[in-house]
Amino acid sequence: METPKLSALPYKGTRDFYPRDMKLRNWFFGRVRTALENACFEEYEGPMLESLELYAAKSGEELAREQTYNFTDRGGRDLAIRPEMTPTVARMVAGKMGELNYPLKWFSIANMYRYERPQRGRLREFWQLNVDIFGCDTYEADLDVIGSAIAVLRAYGADESMFRVHINNRRFFNDVIAAICNTDSEGARRVSKVVDRKNKVTRAAYENALVELGLSEEQIERIDALYAMSVAEATALCPDSEGAKELTALFGALEKTGLARYCTFDFGIIRGLDYYTGTVFEVFDLAPENNRAMFGGGRYDNLVGLFVKNAKISGVGYGMGDVTLENFLVTHGLVPDLDNEGTKVLVTRFDDVPYENYVTLTARLSEAGVRASVYLGTKKFGKQIDYAVRGNYSHVVIMGGDELAAGTVKVKNLATREESVVSQDKLAEFFA
Amino acid sequence: METPKLSALPYKGTRDFYPRDMKLRNWFFGRVRTALENACFEEYEGPMLESLELYAAKSGEELAREQTYNFTDRGGRDLAIRPEMTPTVARMVAGKMGELNYPLKWFSIANMYRYERPQRGRLREFWQLNVDIFGCDTYEADLDVIGSAIAVLRAYGADESMFRVHINNRRFFNDVIAAICNTDSEGARRVSKVVDRKNKVTRAAYENALVELGLSEEQIERIDALYAMSVAEATALCPDSEGAKELTALFGALEKTGLARYCTFDFGIIRGLDYYTGTVFEVFDLAPENNRAMFGGGRYDNLVGLFVKNAKISGVGYGMGDVTLENFLVTHGLVPDLDNEGTKVLVTRFDDVPYENYVTLTARLSEAGVRASVYLGTKKFGKQIDYAVRGNYSHVVIMGGDELAAGTVKVKNLATREESVVSQDKLAEFFA
Repeated sequence: METPKLSALPYKGTRDFYPRDMKLRNWFFGRVRTALENACFEEYEGPMLESLELYAAKSGEELAREQTYNFTDRGGRDLAIRPEMTPTVARMVAGKMGELNYPLKWFSIANMYRYERPQRGRLREFWQLNVDIFGCDTYEADLDVIGSAIAVLRAYGADESMFRVHINNRRFFNDVIAAICNTDSEGARRVSKVVDRKNKVTRAAYENALVELGLSEEQIERIDALYAMSVAEATALCPDSEGAKELTALFGALEKTGLARYCTFDFGIIRGLDYYTGTVFEVFDLAPENNRAMFGGGRYDNLVGLFVKNAKISGVGYGMGDVTLENFLVTHGLVPDLDNEGTKVLVTRFDDVPYENYVTLTARLSEAGVRASVYLGTKKFGKQIDYAVRGNYSHVVIMGGDELAAGTVKVKNLATREESVVSQDKLAEFFA
Repeated sequence: METPKLSALPYKGTRDFYPRDMKLRNWFFGRVRTALENACFEEYEGPMLESLELYAAKSGEELAREQTYNFTDRGGRDLAIRPEMTPTVARMVAGKMGELNYPLKWFSIANMYRYERPQRGRLREFWQLNVDIFGCDTYEADLDVIGSAIAVLRAYGADESMFRVHINNRRFFNDVIAAICNTDSEGARRVSKVVDRKNKVTRAAYENALVELGLSEEQIERIDALYAMSVAEATALCPDSEGAKELTALFGALEKTGLARYCTFDFGIIRGLDYYTGTVFEVFDLAPENNRAMFGGGRYDNLVGLFVKNAKISGVGYGMGDVTLENFLVTHGLVPDLDNEGTKVLVTRFDDVPYENYVTLTARLSEAGVRASVYLGTKKFGKQIDYAVRGNYSHVVIMGGDELAAGTVKVKNLATREESVVSQDKLAEFFA
């Protein structure tokens, strides 16, 4: 009986990165890395497996179990494959809290798993850029983080016609709701919960919920009006709010540093009621066919406090998924021609020359930093050329018995079909 | 009651990569990538989660369950976190078998999990370089793979005094055992199983086991003698063996290409009896205090056949773990000074200059490719300098009210303490 064959498909919701996919991924991540390192962000990484309680502490145990891949190890520890980076980075900051050089400007590019139905833009395994600043409580860090998101997108060639950063402030949000409703912070919190779900329910359900909380029609209209206001108009409604002051400082700095053309105030940006505590933002794709939030972030206080008693280290940051980013770049035609790999040389081989001569020639090129490979195998010249063309090689080197004797090689440019005769000793210089 | 605090430690056997650790890891992987890309190897990656059956098919279900982190998803699929890359890459080749451009020269750098007791050089989460060539059945691919391992180590600055590649051939191994024992391949296989475990049992147990299989004292001595032989002496014992011919061709090419100084024939290299089918090799650290095999590989036939009926795609490759590599590089003093990050500029700030001016100045540097950050926060100048020193910044930029008015800045080199006055417009050029 024949052994049944295994499936060659990857696990549902995960991807195989064949070399061409990997080139794209490396291009993505390379651009991000350079842009962030140029702004002195430092890269970190953590393990794929974490204690389940890390996620339970943030989202509740039920949600943590439901949304992660989790299991119990043989020592009885409940583990989860990380679904996000934030608990890990908070744990890491806690782990060396007294030794680190604040403010920290940190980023990571790491894979995550979420247990959910795969759909467009949502996979079970995805890669995510996480950027955070820890230990600076004021708007300067918010500005730096938002500036870094803009710098990353600009590094891909995106401009202000392609994306917009929508910004709000959670403290301002609470304060202006309280001011309009004439209520205390607990009352404002109840209203906020309704406003947070504005786009997820019908208009009638939304209004009914607010009326039930005692709001008048006029108060509901005043909340509606916030969505169309400029930052100056909105903050004028509660000028003493710390959140309003932060918004004013942030937008003033965006204006004066030329970043305002990428940014807009948007009262509709709220993001997770229990998590964010100050500036919040989402970056929108402006393409008509893809007009939606791509990623976002904001200020969250004291996640480090989950690990260390009395810790007071605030953070501000964002996470950006690779699938979303790829959709954005493809939509705007910002992905370069990955088949054009620059100089890449295939040294072809013939039977009348000892194989070692090809190997030595190739090694000299590789060591000089010229990407080069000898053809592996014994196929005819035509097949070797096919291999070079399909493999995005830019040049082939030809050295038969005559060339060997003359100390030369022929170099053929596969794009222009131009041929050159080059001394074997000068071959690396020829490609330099 | 206070919520109990979470542990800040990473899960047992895993590591946190703080920025300094990450710099080392990026340096490791960057060197590997460049060396392999210069030899036209292409990078790929696969998912962290795979079907458990992928590993069960190779190692048996019991071992697969015991050595991996595995669990059942809500759809009843048995999954494992990958403990190695080979089944994934074989699956990927199978998945696009008809479309790929053979011979494939592929590599990946990926994290793996093994469920075992953590110890020196063995962690539960580790990173591994995997290098493979698929679709070339002859010694040229073996040479290319061994050459790439040497090129990778040389790219770190290692030379022939630091490591040695020990090479054997599994076909030769079987044939020479058969020749010495005057037996058929099944008889040779039984002897091979004993010889494979030579170093794991006492000398007496080893000899007894061979005597039980009918070997004479003289035959045992002839096997012993193989361990001290040159490749020429050893292959002369069964010159018609295909394995002997492969060894001769491989060592001939190593000699003529100058790679022989990194290599040696070693009859003691066997590596997993059921897996490898031709050339096998292990790379040894030559440091007296660390003299042991660091990593190895060889030729394995037809793993792709697990997925596709009648597939005949052979492979040859190796895997190298990051912890082993780090031990090697540290032992030989090959890790560079990672605190020297080159030019990295902290723009300090003063109260009498609008903050936006610092942000704009900094952004101009970053965009010109100079790593630069503005100091985030409001601490005094001395604290800002401390931050720069601890953060490996090479320079600080100083712009008070006077400099602002004059259109200049002061640049202080933190290593030499030299100060320069530079026009604000020429600052990027100053650092270029």
